[in-house]
Amino acid sequence: MSTENWATERTEDFMEVRYRNDKTLFTGKSEFQKVEVVQTRWHGKMLLNDDLVMLTEKDEFVYHDMISHIPLFTHPNPKTVLVIGGGDGGSAREALRHEGVEKVVMVEIDKMVVDACIEHIPQTSEVLLGHPKLELIIGDGVKYVNETKLKFDVIIVDSTDPIGPAQPLFGPDFYKDVYSCLSDNGIVVSQGESPWYNVPIQESMMEVLSSQFPFVRMYQFGNLTYPGGAWCFTFASKGLSPLKDFDKSRVAESGLKFKYYTPELHSACFALPQFLLDSVEKFFKG
Amino acid sequence: MSTENWATERTEDFMEVRYRNDKTLFTGKSEFQKVEVVQTRWHGKMLLNDDLVMLTEKDEFVYHDMISHIPLFTHPNPKTVLVIGGGDGGSAREALRHEGVEKVVMVEIDKMVVDACIEHIPQTSEVLLGHPKLELIIGDGVKYVNETKLKFDVIIVDSTDPIGPAQPLFGPDFYKDVYSCLSDNGIVVSQGESPWYNVPIQESMMEVLSSQFPFVRMYQFGNLTYPGGAWCFTFASKGLSPLKDFDKSRVAESGLKFKYYTPELHSACFALPQFLLDSVEKFFKG
Repeated sequence: MSTENWATERTEDFMEVRYRNDKTLFTGKSEFQKVEVVQTRWHGKMLLNDDLVMLTEKDEFVYHDMISHIPLFTHPNPKTVLVIGGGDGGSAREALRHEGVEKVVMVEIDKMVVDACIEHIPQTSEVLLGHPKLELIIGDGVKYVNETKLKFDVIIVDSTDPIGPAQPLFGPDFYKDVYSCLSDNGIVVSQGESPWYNVPIQESMMEVLSSQFPFVRMYQFGNLTYPGGAWCFTFASKGLSPLKDFDKSRVAESGLKFKYYTPELHSACFALPQFLLDSVEKFFKG
Repeated sequence: MSTENWATERTEDFMEVRYRNDKTLFTGKSEFQKVEVVQTRWHGKMLLNDDLVMLTEKDEFVYHDMISHIPLFTHPNPKTVLVIGGGDGGSAREALRHEGVEKVVMVEIDKMVVDACIEHIPQTSEVLLGHPKLELIIGDGVKYVNETKLKFDVIIVDSTDPIGPAQPLFGPDFYKDVYSCLSDNGIVVSQGESPWYNVPIQESMMEVLSSQFPFVRMYQFGNLTYPGGAWCFTFASKGLSPLKDFDKSRVAESGLKFKYYTPELHSACFALPQFLLDSVEKFFKG
């Protein structure tokens, strides 16, 4: 361990964010990617896949609140949830906090991510050790949605960037199958990249969604440890709107407390800056 | 010029953000701080004071939209604006776009910042070369608000962090004078730091404001090139609320186009995440 050791995420050739790494806790190479867990000085433990920051203990609640509670409080009574990816367990953890949810299926392709998180980041992964409502499948999410006969009220696509194992999760065939796996009132929310550094990916995702779903929007939040901070999720449904169909009183009734999500933010996060509207508003539907 | 040259902002001892610097355009040391302008590879030209990123050409519109148009569209007919700091000219530029504004006084302490921006970053500073409604004063903003007999409808405190020359801009004496300089319907908006890395400063600012002003709030936005992305402005007024007193139709009537600001964001940016409410909501007033 060197006191001058840093965990570094590089964005193309023009930017680097470096976090002081006090100790490398795990490093491995799976058949899909490089996986690392490091002890940072300020952000707690950090998971990196292929040198990209996936989460830190300090701020993971932001991402996990926003990817899960927006669809789960938009849907009037979600009972079944599918998480594609999300190997750290944070999205499953949040979904399982909703009392009405009866079953969460989580399909993560990379067992090494799950194992590394179980060993080193219990904050997100404890739920993966066993929960009566959780079915954890180590497998290919693309194949799963193509083959399953189950229907889900909410599908959460908690993926890495569209390089390596996550690439097919950004394409039209995948979302055709996602549509088929959704119940009549179903909602799918997906990791939607940076409005600054990933504009072509965002436009492509939104185009794919708008060709499949009757209702499509994008929402934004501030992710502390993703490059540039501002980050997005896509929201697509068979009709439900996170604005018109959101019943604020369900949040209070749930009795749940959050560190990021609030009923006010639920609506506010759909107000996008003009430069982002300029690139994605043409794909809005419903 | 080295191809491995980086402009680096360090946050305490635990994080660094590094931008590829293709050419250092200006570097100097004023009596207040180190001033640099560099040509980055992706973010355009970048101004740094004391190794902290102040702005880049690529994203300065975010900060300048949000510091100026929130108060200027909350106030029903702002005629006089005072900008404290803001040496790059961006805040004055945005204020001067409002047709009803008759006079903008800008008080910047560091002539070197103004001169470096005029020479290298015309995108923000062009207005400083001469505008019939602009009075540019090189001087101490703290002293100015203590001595002036003028009253302003909107005061914008566009300052650096509370180290070096900006330190007094975060204290109670300054805001007592700001209160005195505001017209009966006056609003003051101030650079409000990071909700992650500057919590004690945020709480202190909010406490100072709540001891002086009948109406106090905080709002957030995503600043691409500030550490962690999520950033805040404080909002204090003699009574006007950015939510209840905001007349959306004034935005359309203004005919102005923005790259970041929208009437929806005007309200949405006041919806704060729970962890931020936990630290600052107790200082909200009105």
